[in-house]
Amino acid sequence: MNAHSFYRPVSGLNLLSRIGNDPQGRDRLMLDTLARIEAVDRDIGAMTAVARREAAMASAAAAHGPLAGLPIAIKDIFDTHDLVTSYGSPIYERYRPRSDAAIVTLLRRKGAVIVGKTVTSEFAYMAPPATRNPCDIQRTPGGSSSGSAAAVAAGMVPYAVGSQTGGSTIRPASFCGIAGYKPTFGLLPTVGMKCFSWSFDTVGLFAAGVRDVAYLAQVLSDRQLAVDGITAGPVFGVPDSYPWTEPSANASAALDTAVRAIEDAGGRVRRVRFGSWMAAMVAAHDTIQRYEAYQSLGFEYDRHRGDLSPMLAGFLERAATIDAATYTKARVLMGEAKDSLAELFNGVTGLLTPSAPDEAPDGLDSTGDPAFNRNWTLLGCPCVNVPGLWGARGGPIGVQVIGRPWDDARCLDAAAFVEQAIAAASGRRRAT
Amino acid sequence: MNAHSFYRPVSGLNLLSRIGNDPQGRDRLMLDTLARIEAVDRDIGAMTAVARREAAMASAAAAHGPLAGLPIAIKDIFDTHDLVTSYGSPIYERYRPRSDAAIVTLLRRKGAVIVGKTVTSEFAYMAPPATRNPCDIQRTPGGSSSGSAAAVAAGMVPYAVGSQTGGSTIRPASFCGIAGYKPTFGLLPTVGMKCFSWSFDTVGLFAAGVRDVAYLAQVLSDRQLAVDGITAGPVFGVPDSYPWTEPSANASAALDTAVRAIEDAGGRVRRVRFGSWMAAMVAAHDTIQRYEAYQSLGFEYDRHRGDLSPMLAGFLERAATIDAATYTKARVLMGEAKDSLAELFNGVTGLLTPSAPDEAPDGLDSTGDPAFNRNWTLLGCPCVNVPGLWGARGGPIGVQVIGRPWDDARCLDAAAFVEQAIAAASGRRRAT
Repeated sequence: MNAHSFYRPVSGLNLLSRIGNDPQGRDRLMLDTLARIEAVDRDIGAMTAVARREAAMASAAAAHGPLAGLPIAIKDIFDTHDLVTSYGSPIYERYRPRSDAAIVTLLRRKGAVIVGKTVTSEFAYMAPPATRNPCDIQRTPGGSSSGSAAAVAAGMVPYAVGSQTGGSTIRPASFCGIAGYKPTFGLLPTVGMKCFSWSFDTVGLFAAGVRDVAYLAQVLSDRQLAVDGITAGPVFGVPDSYPWTEPSANASAALDTAVRAIEDAGGRVRRVRFGSWMAAMVAAHDTIQRYEAYQSLGFEYDRHRGDLSPMLAGFLERAATIDAATYTKARVLMGEAKDSLAELFNGVTGLLTPSAPDEAPDGLDSTGDPAFNRNWTLLGCPCVNVPGLWGARGGPIGVQVIGRPWDDARCLDAAAFVEQAIAAASGRRRAT
Repeated sequence: MNAHSFYRPVSGLNLLSRIGNDPQGRDRLMLDTLARIEAVDRDIGAMTAVARREAAMASAAAAHGPLAGLPIAIKDIFDTHDLVTSYGSPIYERYRPRSDAAIVTLLRRKGAVIVGKTVTSEFAYMAPPATRNPCDIQRTPGGSSSGSAAAVAAGMVPYAVGSQTGGSTIRPASFCGIAGYKPTFGLLPTVGMKCFSWSFDTVGLFAAGVRDVAYLAQVLSDRQLAVDGITAGPVFGVPDSYPWTEPSANASAALDTAVRAIEDAGGRVRRVRFGSWMAAMVAAHDTIQRYEAYQSLGFEYDRHRGDLSPMLAGFLERAATIDAATYTKARVLMGEAKDSLAELFNGVTGLLTPSAPDEAPDGLDSTGDPAFNRNWTLLGCPCVNVPGLWGARGGPIGVQVIGRPWDDARCLDAAAFVEQAIAAASGRRRAT
């Protein structure tokens, strides 16, 4: 998969078929996983807590269900009763919640073993953490699900859970060259996830490839989301311009490569144009997120301001000025925009855009720009980062497939088509 | 207000105008409040935790804002960093959360002083707690916001915060003869409230009267909700039958009394008929609530089943059988029903129904029947319990005013009209 770096992600589906129901296979996998985390995480810094070996082995041995014995890492924005949960903030240093987040419970019910918690930027906002990108350790893995993306990209775990309120799943997946899936808003439960903005907070999933992530989504949601056969001839709508950050030449070239691969594979592409409401949604996202975060993180802001990063404290300070009328207006516009979505998807299987304005920025001073993700989070659309492309600066660069709300199966299927088309084109290039 | 019992509620608006900005007034109020809680709660059992005197006095002295120095009690389903929070369950015995729920932060930002936590039925479900109804200590105050309703009805605090997922605010307000207000879904933040069903969980407010509760709602929501002048001539739609529990003769008589009082005061009443979708919503509420609770309380069910009441354990056991397809279908029906609401409110200011099928049941074995509340919770409509009527068995019996979603101001205004009309009619009866 990843010819450019030392690390490579591991397919969850392959692992599952390999361990099967063999107890020794489970034992070996758990020991290998913990050893690999220990060896690799010194360089990457993706984990905030790792399960004790005895506990992980016992959980694996006792596990039942479709994910029995599979190691999974959880963004440290979700509560776990048995692992420290700090939400990326010194305010919650050494905090041990009394219960598990609902997504953790669902994973355990399906047999998964929580092997560790992963680095999140502070309360899943934008202050950059110290995690490194496994594809280039001089760069950020993106954020806020920094550790989840990096842990999967480095092959520490086949699956990791993250979250997205702006672009916190799709962007790091793009930067790290793995599949990232932000489901339809409300598909997976956010109970026990530290709230930032209740209108947007969404559970996100990471895996090596689209089929891997679709399988995990199926198991967790109890819906037919796994990609069994890929539907031929999808039609993608490609926007002719964006009312936010312009894509870099690098991202545009990657998108063009994806488009050619799609057409070569029998898919079609048509240009689409956003209505003027799409620009209004950029402002609406900002208004709604601020208003809600000022309430959700009110305790931390009012009582522990000195322990917040200047970036988050400044954000919340400005957030305090948004009044209920402004918020309500933004929520009404958001509802109207959701009603306009059918038109946008008219005649297409899904939309296709860059996942981010560029490949991962150099250094660890920024987690990158979520501009290409925020509006889809607001609209509740399912989004998939499709990996497999590399940019001019040598890092991974993803394309994003966006679907209709509650049409996650079609969105994942179309993303798998794109992934396969890209792989085929890349194989042809290597062969010539 | 309450001629039938030893206790009477205290108007928050009156208290506020009495203490004004006088620091000594605040001190006296806080001391009186704590003394009254100590004296009264031995018989009522509304409180699970009471603030230490020094802490409450210091908070009152330091308070700023429209509620400065006002004592408020919080249902023990909301996190408080400084008071034990047990969600009505032995699983959380002595639990001290690390932060405050957002509604607690909003209250503190406005100057309120949290003087105690109030009894909730276990995780705000139906298992009856030991709290007694201040209007008749041989009866339940209703639930699940049992302690909040009882604390206000007994005059321990002028205001209390509760919650409603089925009928947990309106029903106890009706049984205790006070005002209860369940806002439009999403008007007040539920962050830091123990989740039962994320599609329905709503913050509820209790006060002596409708004007009192409307003022608190205005302060907390930053919206124009206070009842300044009451709008003349509202028109109420009264359903001619219900697709759930029939009202008792007692409740029907109370509703008739309210209707006559409304007409005498210049309001109007017209019969309305529910569409067939209203019956489908009863089943949808049950499906959605079960599916979500099985995820929200998954940790407690999977790991602490022996510490759940048989009632809740049985509910969750049956909940486990609801699949995603059934849930999704119910959610779709719910969305369609919300789209049908405009029709139901066509030509009326609000709907008027009993708040509960009867006055409070005798004994403490049941918190009563939420049938008259559940569908409005599902539909997200604002609801107000209007106090002032007494039933044939000698207990309070409320009527419920139901408004359009996000039309809370009109709903509260119409409820204040009903409250005033009832008081006037009762005054006339006393005079003759």
